[in-house]
Amino acid sequence: MDFISKLQKIWEKNNSLLCIGLDPDIDKLPDSFKSSNNPLFEFNKAIIDATADLVCAFKPNSAFYEAHGAKGIEELKQTFDYIRSDYPDIPLILDFKRGDIGNTNNFYAQFAFDYLGVDAVTVQSWQGREAIQPFLDIKDKGIIVWCKASNEGSGEFQDLELNGKKLYLQIAENVSKEWNTNTNCLLVVGATYPSELKEVRNIVGDNMVLLVPGIGAQGGDTEAAVKASVNSKGDGVIINSARGIIYASGGQDFAEKARAKAIETRDLINLYR
Amino acid sequence: MDFISKLQKIWEKNNSLLCIGLDPDIDKLPDSFKSSNNPLFEFNKAIIDATADLVCAFKPNSAFYEAHGAKGIEELKQTFDYIRSDYPDIPLILDFKRGDIGNTNNFYAQFAFDYLGVDAVTVQSWQGREAIQPFLDIKDKGIIVWCKASNEGSGEFQDLELNGKKLYLQIAENVSKEWNTNTNCLLVVGATYPSELKEVRNIVGDNMVLLVPGIGAQGGDTEAAVKASVNSKGDGVIINSARGIIYASGGQDFAEKARAKAIETRDLINLYR
Repeated sequence: MDFISKLQKIWEKNNSLLCIGLDPDIDKLPDSFKSSNNPLFEFNKAIIDATADLVCAFKPNSAFYEAHGAKGIEELKQTFDYIRSDYPDIPLILDFKRGDIGNTNNFYAQFAFDYLGVDAVTVQSWQGREAIQPFLDIKDKGIIVWCKASNEGSGEFQDLELNGKKLYLQIAENVSKEWNTNTNCLLVVGATYPSELKEVRNIVGDNMVLLVPGIGAQGGDTEAAVKASVNSKGDGVIINSARGIIYASGGQDFAEKARAKAIETRDLINLYR
Repeated sequence: MDFISKLQKIWEKNNSLLCIGLDPDIDKLPDSFKSSNNPLFEFNKAIIDATADLVCAFKPNSAFYEAHGAKGIEELKQTFDYIRSDYPDIPLILDFKRGDIGNTNNFYAQFAFDYLGVDAVTVQSWQGREAIQPFLDIKDKGIIVWCKASNEGSGEFQDLELNGKKLYLQIAENVSKEWNTNTNCLLVVGATYPSELKEVRNIVGDNMVLLVPGIGAQGGDTEAAVKASVNSKGDGVIINSARGIIYASGGQDFAEKARAKAIETRDLINLYR
């Protein structure tokens, strides 16, 4: 099933727009994992089992696995394999923000879709559509373009004005009008920028899904982010939280506390959609 | 030794501005490698042994290894370990074009510098300086910012004008004036855009090193690229060729032909610097 259809089904089934970022930092895991052979995977597995009925997607960020080299990549694959096997209706997003020239992007796509078997990936806009075409050509996968980042300094280039229009809005316009011929594009806009979220929603209309990271540890206000980003049907968004949920407790009750935090976050999102 | 010092020494020792891109595509390797346990590494090793006295750097692109998952990452590490052990004076560049928010970039830096042990990496500009600071803080490593890409469609955003100034020039300006407090920044500008190369050189002055990909298979004209990019001392650039050299022959003479092509390319670069 294509990514967008899978997402629509799970939005309904789990009544949730919440995505959990599986970004395990070995230094922050409960002590019991530190002697595990597969600490990243084992931690993820506990979080997944505790929250799978509460989410619309899981989104591991590649960096947290690459930091451990080949072993980390194995655990990233174990994580995706586990979700696909035990929770097959949950869409899998690989947050790897790749972008290179076209020939090279073919190989990044192999990593994501052939090796890891994910449903969607995040990519850069910088190289332009021509170079990202190997991703865009894969019709059943979600191609999520980094548009307005959640970090404090993201405006250095993203907010520059070109003929009165800020660059991230130009990206939203090009992606929605020109890149999206297979209707498989999404955009990333940070929850930390609700007014920018609203502008992007206005540009892309009701149908494009937005991935919204930055509630939780990054400080984005959930009410403002949800109200600004949902479409007229009250969906069309994937709201991501990572550290705020997975490290809700650093003790042996981490999974239980992650579940409680995920319920609270899902319900808060639903209150404002 | 820091990256820039290592580079200056090898420019002189090997009298070469040529960098070879170690981007092994399994479908293009000579048949003899297809049954190897470590085809990417074994192919690289043959290319490295045949060309190490002709180059100023080796630059594997991460995508070609990631396509093979954890096994590919192992072979990427084998490749860097081999060069570091047998050719310790050759700088190692990991072309991975990473860019994310700051907390995440810490983990990408661990992959590059702690796990793989490279001397320099390529990064994205899009997220702004604040987010790339974990890279910029590592004073002895080269942080090579993707400024003007070599691909045909790179102008979609990079050539947009802000008050008459194109975006890639704004990036060159910010990186050279604001990001480079540790004098460890470089810029990537494609060989396929010689007039843009010249503009960037004029903005950054004599001291910043430019990484220039796109001669060879991508069609960049060597004479034009070299003349536009060298500084007033006739150096300050790393000119990269990958496919044009490593696939000079698809037969058993691939290493010998790669050496011949590397000599030809090095000499052509030296003719015009």
